[in-house]
Amino acid sequence: MAKGKTFIITGPSGVGKSTILHALMEKRKNLYFSVSATTRDPRPGEEDGVHYHFLNVDTFKEWIARDEFLEHAEFVGNYYGTPKRYVDEAMDRGEDVILDIEVQGAMQISEKRPEVVRIFIAPPSWEELERRLTGRGTDSPEKIRKRLQRAREDAATARVYDYFIINDTVEHAVYELDSVMTAEHCRSAERADQIQS
Amino acid sequence: MAKGKTFIITGPSGVGKSTILHALMEKRKNLYFSVSATTRDPRPGEEDGVHYHFLNVDTFKEWIARDEFLEHAEFVGNYYGTPKRYVDEAMDRGEDVILDIEVQGAMQISEKRPEVVRIFIAPPSWEELERRLTGRGTDSPEKIRKRLQRAREDAATARVYDYFIINDTVEHAVYELDSVMTAEHCRSAERADQIQS
Repeated sequence: MAKGKTFIITGPSGVGKSTILHALMEKRKNLYFSVSATTRDPRPGEEDGVHYHFLNVDTFKEWIARDEFLEHAEFVGNYYGTPKRYVDEAMDRGEDVILDIEVQGAMQISEKRPEVVRIFIAPPSWEELERRLTGRGTDSPEKIRKRLQRAREDAATARVYDYFIINDTVEHAVYELDSVMTAEHCRSAERADQIQS
Repeated sequence: MAKGKTFIITGPSGVGKSTILHALMEKRKNLYFSVSATTRDPRPGEEDGVHYHFLNVDTFKEWIARDEFLEHAEFVGNYYGTPKRYVDEAMDRGEDVILDIEVQGAMQISEKRPEVVRIFIAPPSWEELERRLTGRGTDSPEKIRKRLQRAREDAATARVYDYFIINDTVEHAVYELDSVMTAEHCRSAERADQIQS
């Protein structure tokens, strides 16, 4: 059985990442969606190990000290991080790991694990992203303005990614994402060894 | 319109390359199968520009002198080569170019154009390759033995390829080949520029 690979999926808020990832689950088997750890309190309906691994601050700091995170950050007084353990266990089971993560976290992981595949999902245009953010009806105009600015800042770092997927239609974006994951398995040194032996 | 890319497809005789490439044509549009130039005489039914570009020796040598080939070789007294011109014209039209080519030719092209994507198609096992070569019923046992040895020599160079596809079933091999081509378009610097602008 081939070992799984880790894929970072980054993209601006409103680009449609969660829709794409849901559709990807229908198409590909053996996927593990990494669950973050956090020190913030669970909200109603959130389950430990499903939505987050809920840790207290002492445990979180202990995990940091033991280098148990692929990346971590503090945000409005709470810690958030990606535990290594579940990612590695999934890859050992032959599952591909999806990390849905911010640009800063993606950078941290790339430094620790340069072999991780980084995918940037972009909107077809900035106007379309604005339309989608407005259409959700969840954010104030001020918040949308901030999200758009953040998106442009993120896009400015796009060159460091390995692959760029433009979410024009969900179907096409999922086809491309699936292709990237399949192609990455065709690249592997494991396969070359298999052929040579 | 995005520019096309060039893909070298190499694999041992009997691996099922032509079946895979035929099935790929059903699946992907905008493909150009590179037609080789040769100085050998046309066989009955062979058309100029379709099966080969038939050139006389003087013209072939002139093309070599003008650096008009991506690769060329002499084989049993005849010249064979891949003309640059048709490859470049196809990419400019936005078509992906498929070069079905031997290991030596693939090496020559890689030196001239390191950006060309190299794909190696391998049999599921050497026993299976032998079964397929024997099953074709076209080669003598001696010729099959030589083909198998050549296949092992080719496989020994597999590490220099970018992607490895194992032809267990045609359907799966075509899915992987299609994925590799799609993924390569997602890698392009062109796309990163599009996102950043």
